[in-house]
Amino acid sequence: MAPSAVTPPHEVQQTAELTAAAVAHKLAETTKQPNGQSALRLLDASLLKFTKTKTPMTVPEPGDPIINSSSQCTDHMVTAVWRVSTGWDAPELKPYGNLSLAPTASVLHYATECFEGMKMYRGYDGKLRLFRPDANCRRMLTSATRIALPGFDPLELQKLITAMVTVDGPKWLPKSRPGTFLYLRPTMIGSAGALGVAAPKEATLFIIATFMPKLDQPRGMKLLASQDSVRAWPGGFGFAKVGANYGPTLMANSEARARGYDQVLWLLDGVVTEAGASNFFVVWRSKEGKVQLVTAPLDDKIILDGVTRRSILQLARERLTSSGAGVESLEIVEKKFSMEDVAEAVKEGRMIEAFAAGTAYFVCPVCVVSYKNEDLTIPMKLGETGEYAGLIKTWLMDIMYGREQHEWGVIIDEKEDLE
Amino acid sequence: MAPSAVTPPHEVQQTAELTAAAVAHKLAETTKQPNGQSALRLLDASLLKFTKTKTPMTVPEPGDPIINSSSQCTDHMVTAVWRVSTGWDAPELKPYGNLSLAPTASVLHYATECFEGMKMYRGYDGKLRLFRPDANCRRMLTSATRIALPGFDPLELQKLITAMVTVDGPKWLPKSRPGTFLYLRPTMIGSAGALGVAAPKEATLFIIATFMPKLDQPRGMKLLASQDSVRAWPGGFGFAKVGANYGPTLMANSEARARGYDQVLWLLDGVVTEAGASNFFVVWRSKEGKVQLVTAPLDDKIILDGVTRRSILQLARERLTSSGAGVESLEIVEKKFSMEDVAEAVKEGRMIEAFAAGTAYFVCPVCVVSYKNEDLTIPMKLGETGEYAGLIKTWLMDIMYGREQHEWGVIIDEKEDLE
Repeated sequence: MAPSAVTPPHEVQQTAELTAAAVAHKLAETTKQPNGQSALRLLDASLLKFTKTKTPMTVPEPGDPIINSSSQCTDHMVTAVWRVSTGWDAPELKPYGNLSLAPTASVLHYATECFEGMKMYRGYDGKLRLFRPDANCRRMLTSATRIALPGFDPLELQKLITAMVTVDGPKWLPKSRPGTFLYLRPTMIGSAGALGVAAPKEATLFIIATFMPKLDQPRGMKLLASQDSVRAWPGGFGFAKVGANYGPTLMANSEARARGYDQVLWLLDGVVTEAGASNFFVVWRSKEGKVQLVTAPLDDKIILDGVTRRSILQLARERLTSSGAGVESLEIVEKKFSMEDVAEAVKEGRMIEAFAAGTAYFVCPVCVVSYKNEDLTIPMKLGETGEYAGLIKTWLMDIMYGREQHEWGVIIDEKEDLE
Repeated sequence: MAPSAVTPPHEVQQTAELTAAAVAHKLAETTKQPNGQSALRLLDASLLKFTKTKTPMTVPEPGDPIINSSSQCTDHMVTAVWRVSTGWDAPELKPYGNLSLAPTASVLHYATECFEGMKMYRGYDGKLRLFRPDANCRRMLTSATRIALPGFDPLELQKLITAMVTVDGPKWLPKSRPGTFLYLRPTMIGSAGALGVAAPKEATLFIIATFMPKLDQPRGMKLLASQDSVRAWPGGFGFAKVGANYGPTLMANSEARARGYDQVLWLLDGVVTEAGASNFFVVWRSKEGKVQLVTAPLDDKIILDGVTRRSILQLARERLTSSGAGVESLEIVEKKFSMEDVAEAVKEGRMIEAFAAGTAYFVCPVCVVSYKNEDLTIPMKLGETGEYAGLIKTWLMDIMYGREQHEWGVIIDEKEDLE
């Protein structure tokens, strides 16, 4: 395995603003070979041990209220333990169950935790798919590095995720239910029991799969622009999928819901960053008259480098920048824009649509943004969605559910048994 | 109990910058009475259930290497579970042991966690003491509120901490070892198993006690001023003792250590905020010739409202602002100051001393601050500490270890058995 496979240029770019040497050290660990110079074992999916459940659970029927609780997991989970002295133990696929953690475990005190959000999809062609799992696995390494957790080869993580889907996918996403998904949550936590404020000496990786409701409600989301609370800042960790970006947002989120809004639209010094835990896009007509798809840029590391965000930008560049899709062509713009810009576009009738995008919320239209105690109404040309969001969403779903064969839709082999 | 005992002016001030209504809601919950209008049970230390261990552990001897690992806990722990539908269950004091958590537990993904750092002290007069436990318990409510965890009456938490110390203190801090301490860690985590990004519907409070090394090394700490990494931001959560303030600092800390420094000195736009996980103080002679004790202010909620910080400021105001302590009198200044100010004071010979202050590091002199690749040497008049830090540290230790009877040193009754 060439080092370039482990540290693609994308990753280096992602972590460039962190203390550079710390990142270099961490990534060097990841690329160490077990050649006698390093006694640390690498994460190795080929060592995966399988222990199947003896008490299989029942798959909930569509409409079962447990689906909305986002707590019903599948029969199995994958776990792997890393220790600073030995590296990665052989991973295990085993029955789903509770974790036993020392009350002194690092994750419970210092938020040494990172995760990914992905879905597995049951296609209309009967096939089981992941969507760009390589992107999630690379980002997980970025997040782990940022939060002082151990490195690993993203390809090995992808193999472990594939194993999990191969074992639980066929039963939990049956072929009789095309067009449905399960949510996958690869997670890593600092499991070392020691209260010193230091990088944990033990970490546990686990992969679970849960039911989750469809969150891309057609009625559109109402957002409340944050006035007094900031999600992320320069020199911080907004770009990483670490727990520390979520817990601190919950109070403002709860308050937004109490006031009748669905999510917070996060601002930093008046500049629009993210919507809830999703990326945020607007389509507006610029003052010069050009239709633009606009979203916040990645370069100051404030916002999450969403896989859905990247995919939307790429599809829009390929399919919407010239005529042919039946809509006016778009200019794609990654730039800072302020809430004042948004308000002005609405008031001048230049706003065309807005939407939030992420794995959980998928592509979810936004119908209202409240700013300075005023509800700004965002148009939705098709009633339930904007025209552009509708097109993009359809294209993405076609790839996810196998209506379009595309390299982003990675088909998972459904063997009867992996052992 | 009057509501004012639950929400002292201090607390309101602490949370004033958060979404105001969310804080009001949370604190209102805390003050609800079980009067029929609310079915939620309050945290009630009088309901504490005692289950003593049947397999008591051995107390490590002084010098045992396990002490430095900060992982050796005492025989017991206190736990209490809260549920959104019912409120607080009766707390339990029970044998120390692992926690069993669903892999979907909120704390493992979204950093819904907060904690306190306190110590129990075995005095030279043979008595067991806590230092200002009321301040820690009030701050824990502030932190819990900020991170979307449930409220409670701080006095009840203090009673639970007292129970823990009463049971484990006599054995683990024996009267034969005056002048020693154990570290107490009250912690609250979101224990609800559900992956939706929302305030957790279940939380677990636990209190543990561990050995911890003395971190106030006399040789003095070397600090590396952070250039590319920022700990906290206005509108963020730097003032709260939540996990999200710690994990993201570990990478920069590891790098500082790799370069031969002990901790990071955190800057925000060049302004000095905290040293590692401690507050930072300088004593310098101002350009006008006045000796000043300077530390960052609390009003923008960037820095932790340290109990040691508050105590130092109060003692200094009482004992160092007029002559009589045998040193030149001080002006006490809580204000923003920049790393350029620090460098200038060093270069102009106006720096008198600097120190970090917190529960873990206590009052720890700083001998070097590295800034823009230059090691700035901070004087320590007495060789091992500055004169002012030395005085303050002695006064604090006298209160903690019973050489001075003071209201901050809260004596814990050592009954043979509480049941």
